[in-house]
Amino acid sequence: MKKTIALSCALAALACAMPAQAQFAKPEDAIKYRKAGFTVMAAHFGRLGAMAQGRVPFDAKLAAENADVLATVAKLPWAAFGEGTDKGETRAKPEIWKEAAKFKEAADKNQAEIAKLVAAAKTGNLDNLKTAFGSAAPTCKACHDNFRKD
Amino acid sequence: MKKTIALSCALAALACAMPAQAQFAKPEDAIKYRKAGFTVMAAHFGRLGAMAQGRVPFDAKLAAENADVLATVAKLPWAAFGEGTDKGETRAKPEIWKEAAKFKEAADKNQAEIAKLVAAAKTGNLDNLKTAFGSAAPTCKACHDNFRKD
Repeated sequence: MKKTIALSCALAALACAMPAQAQFAKPEDAIKYRKAGFTVMAAHFGRLGAMAQGRVPFDAKLAAENADVLATVAKLPWAAFGEGTDKGETRAKPEIWKEAAKFKEAADKNQAEIAKLVAAAKTGNLDNLKTAFGSAAPTCKACHDNFRKD
Repeated sequence: MKKTIALSCALAALACAMPAQAQFAKPEDAIKYRKAGFTVMAAHFGRLGAMAQGRVPFDAKLAAENADVLATVAKLPWAAFGEGTDKGETRAKPEIWKEAAKFKEAADKNQAEIAKLVAAAKTGNLDNLKTAFGSAAPTCKACHDNFRKD
């Protein structure tokens, strides 16, 4: 009982922390939405990464544009891990719900690092971008390692 | 030859009109990205629609938040219809590339209506939202009818 309450509170806190609270008719809608959100997020994160890692030339304007998109989309998927969305077409591990506080912590850390990356990408300075990307990337990986099936 | 040049120009114009120009390693990456973008776009468009149509209570703050997300994500998928992305896991009709100018026109019209909807959703007035949603929805449908397989 205590555990159930703790879980509910952690999930509620996660949902309430979101700017655009999720409204999904069916669990599969939430799953489709969060996967789509992560896909878009990863694409724009990846474009900043390509510049940070020298795979494409640094372009300050493009970096700022990608940062603007990233700032919006990186907030979206987290609201779509509600009750009943653990089954179906998803690689989400049960740990997301079983260890909800730990998942929230990982999500918050990623959000914080993404916010720093967004700010860095807008400075127009490649070194800032490199540093911030280097700090942000492990927070993506940490969540994938702990909460996503291979 | 003339037709090929016209097509290239229309596609180039479409790509250049995008704020965050697409950079995809493989055509399937572009396809996955544009589908994801449309999914996120549709979710937030749908939340405004639910309020506009009285299926959920009007909430000015939530409307403005969804409008902010929509303003960003509605611009994204269009950059991912480049060459070679007509084949694969996609419902995109060949007309997108065969009638590229017509597709661009439909995309531009949708973009313009979405921009109006975003502005309306931020006024905090339900009647404004209803009017703008009523104008925007057919521009989604028009593109689906003409350029997307069932």
